[in-house]
This record gives sequence, C-alpha cells and structure tokens, in this order.
Amino acid sequence: MATKRSHANNPKPRGRRAGDSDTSEAILNAARSEFAQRGYAKATVRAIAHRAGVDPALIRHFYGSKEELFAISVRYPPDVVSRLASVIDGDPDRLGERFTDAYLSLWEDPATGQPLAALIRSAMTSAPAAQHLRTVTQPDVLHQILTALGTDRAPESVALAGAHLFGIALARYLLKVEPLASLNRDQLIQTCAPVIKAYLEI
Amino acid sequence: MATKRSHANNPKPRGRRAGDSDTSEAILNAARSEFAQRGYAKATVRAIAHRAGVDPALIRHFYGSKEELFAISVRYPPDVVSRLASVIDGDPDRLGERFTDAYLSLWEDPATGQPLAALIRSAMTSAPAAQHLRTVTQPDVLHQILTALGTDRAPESVALAGAHLFGIALARYLLKVEPLASLNRDQLIQTCAPVIKAYLEI
Repeated sequence: MATKRSHANNPKPRGRRAGDSDTSEAILNAARSEFAQRGYAKATVRAIAHRAGVDPALIRHFYGSKEELFAISVRYPPDVVSRLASVIDGDPDRLGERFTDAYLSLWEDPATGQPLAALIRSAMTSAPAAQHLRTVTQPDVLHQILTALGTDRAPESVALAGAHLFGIALARYLLKVEPLASLNRDQLIQTCAPVIKAYLEI
Repeated sequence: MATKRSHANNPKPRGRRAGDSDTSEAILNAARSEFAQRGYAKATVRAIAHRAGVDPALIRHFYGSKEELFAISVRYPPDVVSRLASVIDGDPDRLGERFTDAYLSLWEDPATGQPLAALIRSAMTSAPAAQHLRTVTQPDVLHQILTALGTDRAPESVALAGAHLFGIALARYLLKVEPLASLNRDQLIQTCAPVIKAYLEI
C-alpha cells in the first residue's frame, strides 16, 4: 500500500548493496503494518520478517534492533510536514479549510497514514515510542508549522489546532466512533475550518 | 488511588459474601491500573491478580473472563457523564469554560482518569476494546450530553467538541507532549472555551 520512497533519509544504512533497496523497503513497509496494527510493544521482529518474507537476521542486518527499526519506520516521510506547511500560503480566509483538508489527507493516504497510526498506537502503550513522539516528532512538527505561519504566532494556540485535528483523526480513522467516522468529509471540514483558522492566527 | 464505590452497578456478581467487597474492589483497581498501563491485549489476569495480591482463580470467580473484567473496569463510574451533563445548565456565556473544566477534571481525577486511560489505550490496540468503545461507551456519552443540551443540537457538532477535548486530553495527560502538557490550566481553558461553547450551541 505504501508508495516506494528513497532511503536517502534513513540513518546508518548497514552494508547496503545495489539491489538491496527492494528488500529493505519491503521490510520497512512490513514494519509499518506490524507497528500500526499491534503497537510497538506487541510487534516482533519475527512477525515483521514473516510479513516481509525475509529472515529475521536480514532485518537486524539492515536496521539493527526493534527500537531502531521503529524509529525509522515512524519517521515521517520527508513530505508530510511540508505538505501541511505548504498549504499555509494562500487566501487567508480559506486557511482553515486548506489546513484541515491537508491534515485529513495525511491520515487517508496509506503512505503517511500508516506511519502515523503506527506512531500513535505505539506511543499509547510503549514508553520508548512515547518518548520518541515527545522529543523528536512533535517538537519538529510544531517548529516547522510555526516557521511557516510566522514567528509571531502563539505555540500553544497552534498546538490546540493540532490537538483538535488529532482528536478528530483518532475518532474518525483509528477508533472509528460515530458520528465522526462516517461524517461527510466536506461537512466535517466546513464545520471545523473556522476553529482551525482562528487557532492558527492567534 | 481510586475512591471506593459501591458494586451496585456491576453486573452478574458471582457468589459474593459480606466482606468480599474490599477484595473485589482491590481487583477492580488492579485491573484498571493494568489495562491503563499495558492496554487490553497485553494485560493478563495473572498480572492483575499479582497487583491485587490475590489468586487468579478469585478474579475468575468474581468477574469471569478478562473480557468481562475489562468491560466492568472501563465502565464509567456512574457520575462521569452526569458530571459533564450537570455543568450544561448555568450562564450560557460561560458554558465553554464549565464544560472544558469538567472534562479536564475527569482526566485529572484518578477515580475517573484511570478508567478513561485504560479504555483509550486498550481501544487503540485491541479489537474487543475498540468495539466496546464504539458500541457502548461513545453512543451512551453522546446521547446523555445531547439530552442535557437539548434535542435541537447537531450531534456532529457536539461530537467535534468531544473530539477537540479528547485530542487535548491525550496530548496533555497520556502522551504528555509540549506545549500542551505543561500549559497553564486556566490559560488552556480560556483559549479553547469559546470553541467548545460554539460547537455545543450549533
């Protein structure tokens, strides 16, 4: 489901040869599925190897420990935050619509929704995953959005916009609770866009 | 940490004798801690028994299976939703402040925050727990809040207020991401109260 991407952003490639990239990409996709469905604590290198159709030793060769594999697999694809940041420019009156639409799209696109689900599910039940979210992912996302918005915005208010969209995404896409799970997408965006716009402009 | 409560709302008490109530309450508290920290899938009856200092057989005697124990342990204490509903009456201008304050208090009070954390952590990683949330908890909460607000309110909009507060609570109390984790409580309430008020009044 995930689209192929370059390994240029993965740290510490170990002993890669030309031709290895399909295998390492398959392992990464398998890891994302496993972490997304089972969370960090329950996921195993053995199960990831089984999904990818490779020997567990190969995973250790490419990625090291389960924790290292996790850190790489939940790293946002380079375009995730930039997709949010890129919609900030434009008609200010429609900032809320554009930002909400872009955020929902991240969860709806398997290439980005899968790592997001893996990160959140794991952070809920695993200390290393929660630590990763607190110290790496969240500060980086907030920093990039604030930079795009302009440095005079209130970080707390931008974080509240994020928390609002986060709560919507969890209810709609992960927990699938009604009425949000099957609410018409356009109606959802129209209803919360003014709130998101207001928060981003404080 | 959880305050003692009556067992009057627990279904199917099995073979209770006078004097059993301390033991069954201790089991319930241990179950809430275990489910809150490890989620439904990773929690075991054996670990819950160990926390409560009882034999696992006693848990099965009082509560049946892990699934039945879970359903009872994450059932909201009877006063949870009523605490939210009870703040709806009052000065309409301050509805957002009262509702946000009441919602945050639910997460801050261990007697209610513990079962909430257990339910959400488990629903993220376990199909039976997610099913419980979708079919029992969420429809019941929404129904009671809508009843208190008045039947002319839009369920989607009230659900968006809920999703907003839910996202804030997860970021602040469960995932502990900044700046929301250490944001001054009064400032948090003042900033999001107008939004919550608006959603509840659509």
